[in-house]
This record gives sequence, structure tokens and C-alpha cells, in this order.
Amino acid sequence: MKSAPNLVLALCTAALAAPAAAQFAKAEDAIKYRQSALTVLGTHFAHLGAMADGKIAYDAPAAAANADVVLLASRLPWHAFGPGTDKGRETAARPEIWQQPDKFRERSQAMQAQVADALVPAARSGNLDQLKAAFGPTARSCKACHDDFRRKR
Amino acid sequence: MKSAPNLVLALCTAALAAPAAAQFAKAEDAIKYRQSALTVLGTHFAHLGAMADGKIAYDAPAAAANADVVLLASRLPWHAFGPGTDKGRETAARPEIWQQPDKFRERSQAMQAQVADALVPAARSGNLDQLKAAFGPTARSCKACHDDFRRKR
Repeated sequence: MKSAPNLVLALCTAALAAPAAAQFAKAEDAIKYRQSALTVLGTHFAHLGAMADGKIAYDAPAAAANADVVLLASRLPWHAFGPGTDKGRETAARPEIWQQPDKFRERSQAMQAQVADALVPAARSGNLDQLKAAFGPTARSCKACHDDFRRKR
Repeated sequence: MKSAPNLVLALCTAALAAPAAAQFAKAEDAIKYRQSALTVLGTHFAHLGAMADGKIAYDAPAAAANADVVLLASRLPWHAFGPGTDKGRETAARPEIWQQPDKFRERSQAMQAQVADALVPAARSGNLDQLKAAFGPTARSCKACHDDFRRKR
């Protein structure tokens, strides 16, 4: 693994870029699913943040594994924001998601690109400074979407 | 990708087998996280089941992508069943999880092995009959754990 991380990353990225469609019988199911994917994403991203901030010890294999989960989870929620899924279960999704779909898509894609192109390579590098450098911009790519499209809690 | 699915699978499996630790400040967070991982797992597994049952059209790339998500998600929930996470948020987890940890671990590992060794290769084969053959035993490996360790809803 350690001898060819970039190859592995490229292959896994290609494998996971295939459409991972999941269909939903009810809006409630779509909302629960996207919240779940984002919870998984946020949990593993926060773990990387704790390493970047020195709150927990840096562990290179764990950083890489957490980034793998972030990478996959970053691709999952979006198809669950379909028409009619603005209600049906408690949700922090703002109406702007469906009013400004191009902007929402652009923000979600910017985050996914930041994860794939910066965070994952940094996490796989085995170098804490690289992880630190990539974490902040990735966190800002999350926030850029939350600021406009997620209700304040 | 299609030329070397087993290589990709092996590499991804190795990559994802690394400890993807996520730590939890509160039992509530651990419960929410494991429920989220299991919701993601269940959603993508159900999508494979719909293909296996003929309820939706068989789509080989989508089957492979769904199985990739199942594979990763199958490894996530278990570290979130730590001591003290039997309460703190509504949960279907039964006390037997902490009373019979070896049995619980054995059941979870049997499911993970079934996913990695049977479901994923079948889903990546591009052959619906292989997917059908692998789906039932995998579903039974889920049920074997639910029967003893999950509260009836």
C-alpha cells in the first residue's frame, strides 16, 4: 500500500466515481440518507481536523483511512436532494437548494474536488504539515455551502 | 477499471481495512454515527437487492458502485459500539451487544467477510446471476446479527 498510494488513490477514485445511485421511496428516506452520509462525512473529517489541530496524535495510516471515508462520503448525499425532498422529516436544508440548484451543485462539486485533489493526497502523504495545509481550505469548502444552504441550528 | 477489477478490489480493500477511527466526545455522537453508517449501508444494500429481485433494472456499473459503498460502510459502525454507548440517544441496540461482545463481533465480522468475499466480487462481475446468488447469503448475514442484537421496531 505505502509503495503506491497514488496508484491506489487513482484506482479507488475511479472506482468510487461511478454512479452510486440509491433510490428513495419517500422524501423521508432521502432526507435520512443524506443526513446519514453527511454525518459519516463530518465525523471522519472532524477526526482529520483533530489531528491537524494537534488535539489528537497524528497517525498517518489513520489519517489516510479517514480521508478515504471522507472521499467516498463526499460523493453520496447529492442525489438525495431531489425535488420534493425539502420536507418529510426534520431537515436543515434551506429552500435555496431547490431555488438555486446550479449554485448548490457548484458548491458541492467544489467541496468534492477539494477533498479529492487536496485533502486525500495530503492525508495519504504521511506528512502532517501537508494535512494541516489541506484541512483549512477543505473546511472552508464545507462552510461555503453551509452558509447559503443550511439552516442555522 | 474493468480490465482489473480484482486488483482494484484488492487494493481498495487493503486501503479501507486500515483503522478508520473516529472518536466520540459523547455516547450520543457514537450512536448517531453508527446509525448513520448503517443507514448508508442499508440504503445501498437495498439498491442491490432491488436489482437482484428485478424490481429495478440491472445496471452493472451501478451495482459495482453500490457494492463499493456497502464494502466501506460495512467496516465503519463497529468501533462506535464502545462501552457506555448503550444509551444517550434513541437506539435499537440491545444490551446483549455489551453482554456478549465476542458473539457480536463474530456476527459483524461474518457480515463483513460475506460482503468483501462474495457480494463485492459478484457485484463487480457484471453478471446479474452472480449478484442474485450473493445477495441472499449476505442479507442473511445482516439478519443473523439483527435477530440477536437489534430491538424489534
